Amino acid sequence: MDHLAGIDVGATQIKLGTVDLEGRILQQDRLPAGAKASFVDFARPIAESLKRLQDKTGGTLRAVGIGTPGFTDKRTGVLMGGAENIPCLKGNSLSAFIKERFAVPAVTDNDGTCAAAGELAWGSARSYRDFLLITLGTGIGGGLVLDGKVYRGAQGFAGEVGHLGLDRNGPWCVCGSRGCFEQYASATAIVRLHRERLQKRRLPIPEPLEPAAVLMAARNGDPVALETVRHAARAIAQAFGSVANLLNVEACIIGGGLSAMADQLAGFVREYVADYAWPLLASGLKIHTAALRNDAGLLGAAALALQELSWR
Amino acid sequence: MDHLAGIDVGATQIKLGTVDLEGRILQQDRLPAGAKASFVDFARPIAESLKRLQDKTGGTLRAVGIGTPGFTDKRTGVLMGGAENIPCLKGNSLSAFIKERFAVPAVTDNDGTCAAAGELAWGSARSYRDFLLITLGTGIGGGLVLDGKVYRGAQGFAGEVGHLGLDRNGPWCVCGSRGCFEQYASATAIVRLHRERLQKRRLPIPEPLEPAAVLMAARNGDPVALETVRHAARAIAQAFGSVANLLNVEACIIGGGLSAMADQLAGFVREYVADYAWPLLASGLKIHTAALRNDAGLLGAAALALQELSWR
Repeated sequence: MDHLAGIDVGATQIKLGTVDLEGRILQQDRLPAGAKASFVDFARPIAESLKRLQDKTGGTLRAVGIGTPGFTDKRTGVLMGGAENIPCLKGNSLSAFIKERFAVPAVTDNDGTCAAAGELAWGSARSYRDFLLITLGTGIGGGLVLDGKVYRGAQGFAGEVGHLGLDRNGPWCVCGSRGCFEQYASATAIVRLHRERLQKRRLPIPEPLEPAAVLMAARNGDPVALETVRHAARAIAQAFGSVANLLNVEACIIGGGLSAMADQLAGFVREYVADYAWPLLASGLKIHTAALRNDAGLLGAAALALQELSWR
Repeated sequence: MDHLAGIDVGATQIKLGTVDLEGRILQQDRLPAGAKASFVDFARPIAESLKRLQDKTGGTLRAVGIGTPGFTDKRTGVLMGGAENIPCLKGNSLSAFIKERFAVPAVTDNDGTCAAAGELAWGSARSYRDFLLITLGTGIGGGLVLDGKVYRGAQGFAGEVGHLGLDRNGPWCVCGSRGCFEQYASATAIVRLHRERLQKRRLPIPEPLEPAAVLMAARNGDPVALETVRHAARAIAQAFGSVANLLNVEACIIGGGLSAMADQLAGFVREYVADYAWPLLASGLKIHTAALRNDAGLLGAAALALQELSWR
């Protein structure tokens, strides 16, 4: 049987899987990412794991998709920057490494773009031609599908929705801009802002304070957690409103590790978005969480590989 | 000879022209727009003027493009909203009116989208696949070309870049959002902010205070006008930075009535944009004024008509 492989490279963990052409995972594996001395030390275990998965899966591996943080040159797969947590990737191409060893088409792209490709192929966005997906994590990543295709932009770096400037007087951000969206609604920001709220009110702070626990507490009616979640929802609504005004997308989708917990958050965003977009654009806008939960990265990378095949 | 016609509908004036397939104006006319009692009273003089232009031009009229403010339904040409200054247009289709009388393809689109189509076909954007054009006028309009094509979005309303939220604590805007881009850098905003500056410093205020005069004074070294222009440039840089981060466009172009005077403004925007975008995205970004000056609206509408022909 023909199948694909998807590789989701995170800062702490690498998820790999073989995936059939309908988006079902056939075999999967996980590797610790850790800090590696060199690119080859980082890439070789990935290739070995993929070889084992392929042996177990049998059939023909048609294409490999790889999602990583940061900015990838779309022609070569070389990481140009923006993945500070995995320094050995910079200047190297995981897809070239895989392509050479497996003699199949391989493509690397940004993890937010992969997540959008996954939702388009097999998730909650199958009926949409124009949508934005955001991933709430350490930062906020994103991917765009416009006119029915994954949109990459001039150099292939499109989708950095986490760096929309929401507040011209806000704090400076690592990207060079101020008051960026991710300062207000990333998983990191949700934890930071919730911690600050608890501290100011001299309330006990659970340790470790996990973002999913904050969302869970809000769902259970905790009033302080509800404030934190509503505050994040307002920032998301502002970003979605700007994107709706600029791109007239059909839908804005909340993805990333928190999406399984984010239905209440998405509800608040739906409530607030009319405050931040033209009525005509806000009224038609669909807002919901992503359908591909824990395996979104892996499946998104495989969806990208499928797209790579269809280019040929 | 085969040719096109472009109609640029503004709140105070309507410009019409026949245009050859290389973007040269063959014949042109202007009508006062004024407040009309009914749609037919508004549309009939346009059709009559077009008839006269066509008689003078001779040859075959292949298609008519019409640019108007506001949101147009892309299938029918019906204005859905957002053109408060021309109330009789709402719910009606100028392109249907023209199509019926002239038996040629006719299309209506937003004036910002038309301007982008014009720069793509015959102006300063011929070599770009991905760009944003903004029009500085009463408000800030805009148009997007993505992957080499005019991008319209789900309902055809894309390009409302004037309503990117630059300040989450800023003043509420007519669109329903807060701190919108056009509050800081439209021609209206430039005049308002310059007037406030002059008032606060008890300096004489020239009347009428025209936006072009403010840009001219800044070019001549007037220090207060320079402050006003730098302030507007910072808002434009912030909007361009957000758009570069989101869309990785190759260029951001400053168009609209002020563009002929805006080279100094564009220079300041180039200076500031690194403060508002990822270095990788800001460094490759081209920022300049539009090439089609006074006739941009008319030529843009004709370019849209040309595109309409190529759809067939």
